Amino acid sequence: MKEHKESPDGSVLDPERIVRLEDDAVVVLDQRRLPDELSELRCRDAAELAEAIRTLAVRGAPAIGVAAAYGMALAAMTGEDLAGAYERLAASRPTAVNLRWALDEMRDDPTPERARRIHEGEVERCKAMSAHAATLAPPAAMILTHCNAGGLATGGYGSAVGAIRAAAETGGVAHVWVDETRPLLQGARLTAFELAALGIPHAVIVDGAAASRMAAGEVDIVFTGADRIAANGDTANKIGTYGLAVLAKHHGIPFVIVAPTSTVDPTASTGADIPIEERDAAEVTTRFAARNPAFDVTPATLIAAIVTEEGVHRPPYAETLPAPVTSR
Amino acid sequence: MKEHKESPDGSVLDPERIVRLEDDAVVVLDQRRLPDELSELRCRDAAELAEAIRTLAVRGAPAIGVAAAYGMALAAMTGEDLAGAYERLAASRPTAVNLRWALDEMRDDPTPERARRIHEGEVERCKAMSAHAATLAPPAAMILTHCNAGGLATGGYGSAVGAIRAAAETGGVAHVWVDETRPLLQGARLTAFELAALGIPHAVIVDGAAASRMAAGEVDIVFTGADRIAANGDTANKIGTYGLAVLAKHHGIPFVIVAPTSTVDPTASTGADIPIEERDAAEVTTRFAARNPAFDVTPATLIAAIVTEEGVHRPPYAETLPAPVTSR
Repeated sequence: MKEHKESPDGSVLDPERIVRLEDDAVVVLDQRRLPDELSELRCRDAAELAEAIRTLAVRGAPAIGVAAAYGMALAAMTGEDLAGAYERLAASRPTAVNLRWALDEMRDDPTPERARRIHEGEVERCKAMSAHAATLAPPAAMILTHCNAGGLATGGYGSAVGAIRAAAETGGVAHVWVDETRPLLQGARLTAFELAALGIPHAVIVDGAAASRMAAGEVDIVFTGADRIAANGDTANKIGTYGLAVLAKHHGIPFVIVAPTSTVDPTASTGADIPIEERDAAEVTTRFAARNPAFDVTPATLIAAIVTEEGVHRPPYAETLPAPVTSR
Repeated sequence: MKEHKESPDGSVLDPERIVRLEDDAVVVLDQRRLPDELSELRCRDAAELAEAIRTLAVRGAPAIGVAAAYGMALAAMTGEDLAGAYERLAASRPTAVNLRWALDEMRDDPTPERARRIHEGEVERCKAMSAHAATLAPPAAMILTHCNAGGLATGGYGSAVGAIRAAAETGGVAHVWVDETRPLLQGARLTAFELAALGIPHAVIVDGAAASRMAAGEVDIVFTGADRIAANGDTANKIGTYGLAVLAKHHGIPFVIVAPTSTVDPTASTGADIPIEERDAAEVTTRFAARNPAFDVTPATLIAAIVTEEGVHRPPYAETLPAPVTSR
């Protein structure tokens, strides 16, 4: 059904390596196997792509949206039922709003061109928001980040990691603390991999060590991505993000969300309207009773700034947050 | 050199199963292999026991102290150089103060009887402090704990897990959230194992999920153990404890340390005087640069109460903390 092959050489962080459309498949870099193995997964229809999204072969809110856009184009190219493809893809993961945004973008024009425009648009938005976010970092910044909000998560360049890249090119980055991000270790596996490829100094820490790095004065600013931002600024992101925001507040450290406007959900008035995915407890442990919420919601009151491609937005977010862009 | 054997049947949480003295060895339940395997490790001299402590075959501040006491008795029985045994054992881990306390207790009378008195004393102190701590939990308490401060960590009964046991027997325990406690998963491996054996309802969560459980109103009180308590109440414990205390404060939840007086170090005036062990980065990841501090220090201002066998101590701890007991 699906087929793995070894990837060709070349920069692993090229947008086309992360997700692309071919004649008969949406091809994604299998993020479950990184960094041990660079392998691609060919998804030949919407069902296979939905499975790849559900099992996190491709993950990160903007990257999921891009993959889903390619999935709609593939469905149109292969004569698949478009309404069915839409529903399958929309149901693959509940929290990231970019997924439904991209599917809605594709509904009237499910062409490869439109999908590629969405992809290129997300990468351009990443570069724009990263430049904005970098202005918030001091020179020789000590930055902490959680999960992977890098090029892998956005289809290229990255949001929080993009901000780190941009900061490294402007004021410089002294050090990045990378939360390993249990249960699936996206920080240790993916963000450290990206920062190593980019030559940015970093160290992985267990999630529980973030507080003592802050207390030691070794964190100037926290950058994370987002899976969905409510109209009031409440932000759903990888489990552990909310706690980081509380810790940052306690230590007087700015906590900043970096995300494209495709992550803003104007129909969710607060975080209470955001569905939180609960994943298989076996991701935590297979031996004992466990709970595995995959996201948490950080209240807007704990967020110093939300940075989108349109700029740095400050509270009150209900007034300052921009509407999602459209590629139309 | 060392020898593993399968343990006989019987309650795994009996004090004698956790650590005991035999004619030619200190025998410890190998906590590195739990819960997958119940196996014992025979340490035939101080060097082997120090290695068992260093590699966490036996861990938990009070349990380390008990094991070291038996190690001194063994050294005396076998004619080993006592000063050398003392130094080897004292150097095995830096943060837990119980280690040096127990060694000092044994210095003038390195007999099996004295070592067993220390062991029995620690278990009795656990029961006493647990009864005190249970008075702080509401009926049908929802409790969160970190790492393993159970019978395995104390040589029997437990400190924070002891408090949970005592609460379960008095007002009742509705639920325990068990932080898995990266990097070595003592919560997921050891605390969940103990709670399952005790029939107390619980679920393992990733460390990053604690904050959202608090925000959801599902945590009434946090109990943790301690590796060393400074004279002012600043408390060193497993990495992640400090962050939990900040989170508890933010949510108005009492954060309570449960520890025997052997964990109090009157010679450390504040947390700044407590050495923090930095362990091998390979415990976090073998692929990328990592930092692995094993403990953090929670300032006394974030601690609602410190419970020892002498009772519930409130701030200012410099006035209320009792001196370490002596078994003499």
